[in-house]
Amino acid sequence: MSIFSIDRIDGRARTGIVTTPHADVETPAFIPLASRASVKSMLAEEVKALGYKMVLGNAYHLFLSPGHEHIKSLGGLHRFMEWDGALITDSGGFQIFSMGHGRVADEIKGRAQVSVGEERQAAILSIEEEGVRFRSYIDGAERFVSPEVSMDVQAALGSDIVLAFDECTPFHAGRDYTAQSMERTHRWLDRCIEWRKKNGDEDRALFGIVQGGVYRDLRDASAEKISSAPVSGIAIGGSLGKEKEQIYEVVDWVTAKLPENLPRHLLGIGEVDDLLAAVALGVDLFDCAMPTRLGRHGMALAADPNGRWRIDLRKAPARDQDIPIIDGCGCGACNKYSRAYIHYLVRSSEMTGVRLVTNHNLFFMAKLMEGMRKSIAEGRFEQYREAVLDGAVPWEVQ
Amino acid sequence: MSIFSIDRIDGRARTGIVTTPHADVETPAFIPLASRASVKSMLAEEVKALGYKMVLGNAYHLFLSPGHEHIKSLGGLHRFMEWDGALITDSGGFQIFSMGHGRVADEIKGRAQVSVGEERQAAILSIEEEGVRFRSYIDGAERFVSPEVSMDVQAALGSDIVLAFDECTPFHAGRDYTAQSMERTHRWLDRCIEWRKKNGDEDRALFGIVQGGVYRDLRDASAEKISSAPVSGIAIGGSLGKEKEQIYEVVDWVTAKLPENLPRHLLGIGEVDDLLAAVALGVDLFDCAMPTRLGRHGMALAADPNGRWRIDLRKAPARDQDIPIIDGCGCGACNKYSRAYIHYLVRSSEMTGVRLVTNHNLFFMAKLMEGMRKSIAEGRFEQYREAVLDGAVPWEVQ
Repeated sequence: MSIFSIDRIDGRARTGIVTTPHADVETPAFIPLASRASVKSMLAEEVKALGYKMVLGNAYHLFLSPGHEHIKSLGGLHRFMEWDGALITDSGGFQIFSMGHGRVADEIKGRAQVSVGEERQAAILSIEEEGVRFRSYIDGAERFVSPEVSMDVQAALGSDIVLAFDECTPFHAGRDYTAQSMERTHRWLDRCIEWRKKNGDEDRALFGIVQGGVYRDLRDASAEKISSAPVSGIAIGGSLGKEKEQIYEVVDWVTAKLPENLPRHLLGIGEVDDLLAAVALGVDLFDCAMPTRLGRHGMALAADPNGRWRIDLRKAPARDQDIPIIDGCGCGACNKYSRAYIHYLVRSSEMTGVRLVTNHNLFFMAKLMEGMRKSIAEGRFEQYREAVLDGAVPWEVQ
Repeated sequence: MSIFSIDRIDGRARTGIVTTPHADVETPAFIPLASRASVKSMLAEEVKALGYKMVLGNAYHLFLSPGHEHIKSLGGLHRFMEWDGALITDSGGFQIFSMGHGRVADEIKGRAQVSVGEERQAAILSIEEEGVRFRSYIDGAERFVSPEVSMDVQAALGSDIVLAFDECTPFHAGRDYTAQSMERTHRWLDRCIEWRKKNGDEDRALFGIVQGGVYRDLRDASAEKISSAPVSGIAIGGSLGKEKEQIYEVVDWVTAKLPENLPRHLLGIGEVDDLLAAVALGVDLFDCAMPTRLGRHGMALAADPNGRWRIDLRKAPARDQDIPIIDGCGCGACNKYSRAYIHYLVRSSEMTGVRLVTNHNLFFMAKLMEGMRKSIAEGRFEQYREAVLDGAVPWEVQ
């Protein structure tokens, strides 16, 4: 059942390999989102050429459209999107609840505050022990997802790694709700495991999800529960706090409780400093919409001692800059095209501009992770982390 | 001054080479649009890899934003967009007048009827001997373009081939207006030529534009006037009629009057049957938004005995089709991806879907033209034309 082997350890950071039927993934690794069966604006072969071995599909979106049975009838998600690398799928929990909770996705990452209340009613009709009833954002139809449905969907998609179905509670849900919700998520994990037994799907890797919000005793209890279950890896989900320091603290609590021999996936986190902090705490896998979403808005990843890691190519300074996004960057955009050109394309809503920035951002993330793996292997991860935080370009740190 | 050499003649169809400072272009050739400094959704190197040697930039769009002086300060349009092939630029006339005349672009291609009147007022403020005053679609600011401004803009962009500034009259303008407008277009050509002399820009290739609407005597007079001017090529512009047969008739009148030794560019025409008909009448160059515009709407070019040449991948049948757009097509989309996948992407507004269809459409057009050149060289153009009109895939016709 073990799909993970640790190679080198440097402090609490580690390098390793996650083995899947389609590819071996060197960790720490960033996993680009292919939520709707494509990494936005990219072709599968381009994602592969950037060095990525795993992408993340989304059970929720693909369940609603085009439907998991449809994708299964076309040979599964790998064949459908012509991706021959490893594939992990989100269980749908995060999306269902983030729609219900309004801007919970922002809040979970410490970016905004929302109140639980009316917004939840917009999409979620009921959260019960059996599962969640909600309205499809596509046609308004009533749909139902339970742990069993999620497992069924992810198996139909043919994922290499599936995530257990969980409730993703927002920060403002409060301690009582977070505790009750966590207990239900644990029971839902048991039902996921039961479904796999019944349906002969136990060879497929399953990651359980640690919940418990920002409450240490809940996170401890959840880490213990998930670690004792027959899972191949452990994801860290839910609200991690309002501030970066709180996020790191929660990750610290959780990874300290987890067994060494299972890969750890921090769900939905992707900022440069957050990745460095989490890897230092022993996290192995990350997924995030950030590089592709920034790309669509003309925001390019770059070294930055101020910790924003972004150049807004839509803004005036880029207009006259006849230089690449990053001088010396080896990506397809920086090799040929100027900031001035990309500025014009993005402001003119030309798709080519989105492609160039997205490609650059994914290249940057791949190099950032490569630098982490190399520095861990050489026992100098903390120096690498500090150099990048001080504004060094990942591939220039030796 | 001659930039054109004819290689083989088959009936009135001919193969040849248009020589420019950046590339030799084998004709008959289709020229993809890069109106706003990119072929929509594509990278320059991908357009080149499809076999294209020339793209068409647009003086009107680039004059309004980011500005021709800006592009000049960044090394010219070739460098700005990293296109190292040949570059032809539209003078801006067509766009200014098509905005003024509402849906004139459709009408010129025989697709719709518009009335001249209120719509013209929307963007054009005045058409006078000196030039055209209009409102920018970007910021509503008043702008002015004259033959001299258009030449200045195109020179600043660094085009290999520039088009004379013309008024593009719609079908419903009527004979009197068309005649007056044509005469003014002729005077504008003289001013373009004068500007080039004064500014030492005579080495740059200039194409004059034949106007005259659907009136034979006007077309004859215009063809004669343009042919006698010091131009390197002749474009055919303006309204060609309401029906395909009328369009072909107008092209027939004009090409019959043109000297053999100048390349002939039929502006804005790009449907498969229209290209075949026009090449049969001796046209050498074409540009059209069709392949890229269809791509954005999920419409793929395909062989079709019914003469529509399209598969609408958004429609229901494609949903379950686990086959390429065209079986045996060598394009990057058909080599790997299914109609079912592209159907899903396009309906989900995923950019990757637009890329795949655009790439296929440009591949199809390149192969269509390659087949024309080969069949002309082998003296069997009419057989090729008939085979394609009967539903053969261009690359399967021998």
